[in-house]
Amino acid sequence: MFGARCLLRALRSCSSAPCPRHKPSAKLSVRDALGAQNASGERVKVQGWIRSVRSQKEVLFLHVNDGSSLESLQVVADSSFDSRELAFGSSVEVQGQLVKSLSKRQNVELKAEKIEVVGNCDAKAFPFKYKERHPLEYLRQYPHLRCRTNVLGSILRVRSEATAAIHSFFKDSGFVHIHTPVITSNDCEGAGELFQVKPSSKIKVPEENFFNVPVFLTVSGQLHLEVMSGISYTEAVEILKQASQNFTFTPEWGADLHTEHEKYLVKHCGDIPVFVINYPLALKPFYMRDNEDSPQHTVAAVDLLVPGVGELFGGSLREERYHFLEQRLARSGLTEAYQWYLDLRRFGSVPHGGFGMGFERYLQCILGIDNIKDVIPFPRFTHSCLL
Amino acid sequence: MFGARCLLRALRSCSSAPCPRHKPSAKLSVRDALGAQNASGERVKVQGWIRSVRSQKEVLFLHVNDGSSLESLQVVADSSFDSRELAFGSSVEVQGQLVKSLSKRQNVELKAEKIEVVGNCDAKAFPFKYKERHPLEYLRQYPHLRCRTNVLGSILRVRSEATAAIHSFFKDSGFVHIHTPVITSNDCEGAGELFQVKPSSKIKVPEENFFNVPVFLTVSGQLHLEVMSGISYTEAVEILKQASQNFTFTPEWGADLHTEHEKYLVKHCGDIPVFVINYPLALKPFYMRDNEDSPQHTVAAVDLLVPGVGELFGGSLREERYHFLEQRLARSGLTEAYQWYLDLRRFGSVPHGGFGMGFERYLQCILGIDNIKDVIPFPRFTHSCLL
Repeated sequence: MFGARCLLRALRSCSSAPCPRHKPSAKLSVRDALGAQNASGERVKVQGWIRSVRSQKEVLFLHVNDGSSLESLQVVADSSFDSRELAFGSSVEVQGQLVKSLSKRQNVELKAEKIEVVGNCDAKAFPFKYKERHPLEYLRQYPHLRCRTNVLGSILRVRSEATAAIHSFFKDSGFVHIHTPVITSNDCEGAGELFQVKPSSKIKVPEENFFNVPVFLTVSGQLHLEVMSGISYTEAVEILKQASQNFTFTPEWGADLHTEHEKYLVKHCGDIPVFVINYPLALKPFYMRDNEDSPQHTVAAVDLLVPGVGELFGGSLREERYHFLEQRLARSGLTEAYQWYLDLRRFGSVPHGGFGMGFERYLQCILGIDNIKDVIPFPRFTHSCLL
Repeated sequence: MFGARCLLRALRSCSSAPCPRHKPSAKLSVRDALGAQNASGERVKVQGWIRSVRSQKEVLFLHVNDGSSLESLQVVADSSFDSRELAFGSSVEVQGQLVKSLSKRQNVELKAEKIEVVGNCDAKAFPFKYKERHPLEYLRQYPHLRCRTNVLGSILRVRSEATAAIHSFFKDSGFVHIHTPVITSNDCEGAGELFQVKPSSKIKVPEENFFNVPVFLTVSGQLHLEVMSGISYTEAVEILKQASQNFTFTPEWGADLHTEHEKYLVKHCGDIPVFVINYPLALKPFYMRDNEDSPQHTVAAVDLLVPGVGELFGGSLREERYHFLEQRLARSGLTEAYQWYLDLRRFGSVPHGGFGMGFERYLQCILGIDNIKDVIPFPRFTHSCLL
């Protein structure tokens, strides 16, 4: 049976018309080629990486994948095409005829007329091996190559789609997108616990004079979003939809650091209103706290700067609350640094609230990926900053 | 004439029905209220900030704006509502009847039945004054309040729309969105010229052991995007649409630093192919160079790592090119640090290219804003890191 199929293929391969048309071949993605209905010998061009090579006496089978599809396209070629260069991992451009496949494993296959090797792959040195199923831990060592595997390619595509979906959701709900800053002088959010940003020694400006204040990598855009809630007056009723009419994607600094940040917040949590319910426990929202005792798995949000005051949910600016805040900042010697925070509360404050969600945790949750490093294109963590 | 209108208003104001319906007032944005057709006394609730107060003998006129519209909603109230608290900048919630306005200046106005001050504004201390047109330089001193002005509110809304449009464009063209890292160990892009990131002294890990290598704030996601071009095989033909099937928004570090970065690149430019034409000169694309001599104002892209090699545009991986690169890195003592860069070129490299555009410059260009600091929500620059 197998022999018969091979023979048929060999015959078809040999019958390839030696009269190339003058019309240039249409370039097709692997996905489009696989989806072609009634393939009947159209001349096409397909580009991709070789995922497998099977050489038989008179026929050569290649599987080519360009990332547009999980499935690869089978390329059938005369054995005269065979060469050392057609190796697992090489990139190729194949021109030929798209025909119906006789095998049940695929609908169409590409009968090669021309195969050009675009980029060689030193298969011996290439860390990914043909037919081997490499564990995610192994792939993690090769952040520069792993996006060419099906698993990482898929994860990163889902990440891209999820990003777009979140953007659309907020846009359609009337929110304004704000790019919150990556470097901040606000030490109070716990940033001072993490990374400080200093001009490199190659810059001729003395360190202390660059920004005039110490600056840090931000750990949360919350305070900046609070500032920007002044762009639009809304009520903090439907938190998910209407919170503060703006949202952001703050980059995160890797799993371990993120966890540290949460611990810091939880330590400072007071008794505060619960306002988001039935939130998936696994997500552990960012500046919220899981009420473990609650049967509904509710989470509570906190006012980071003045825990317990509840300004975040807070109705209007009440004078006593303002003075409490003022005194508290004064006691901490923060009045000057947080004048802007006081200003927001004495110049027409409005009720506001919000929530944060760890985007990478969300991805882990929907994808069932155990390690956060596998859902981040270029993860950074203790002892590692590859690329 | 004016007196007659006032009298009419006063009469209408006095005639407000003292029988509040049990149905709660519908909450309307100022935009929706202004756009109401055939307003005929529906009870509504509007929230916003007071933009002007005009008190007459028997009538009080407020203009209320919630950020949803450039135009404010006129609120007409009985003078008994007058109070010190109804000041420019205060936030209020007004309930009343939406009626046709007799004035030609607006279609509808809100006949107030209840006015609640939500957040007082200390108008004397408030840095923005009624009827004054504050220059952008002045507003820049108050990054925490300026989004409440029409001009900054509008700029930030356009920024949000432009962000969404760019995301949509790339998504619709089949690109994958990649979050490139903010911290990087790649010094070679010129990052070492800028900011180094170090663990804060509060972290108990010795500085040199945190990531094992010195890390910097990135100045470009280019190399990371090149890595990710492995997610999908495409040709670098239509640069704008098809470059490397992924894109990113890298945050920038303020105008001055950005300019520095460009200078660094231009210094290293060789003679290289021109591939984007008729690009608006004012935009000064990011890792491209303006060919000032060209009548079409073309720009040329450069390979940052190996200027002159032209790998960016480059056809396939050619052995001689690879060896040139290898030797060059070895001479610079960068072989270990850039093994990944070599790897990309020996394991099935594909042609790739791309371009960058300063998003803030683009905004300046379409908005006609002179200073880049006015199109950034929280600008950071030398001697300043407010908030």
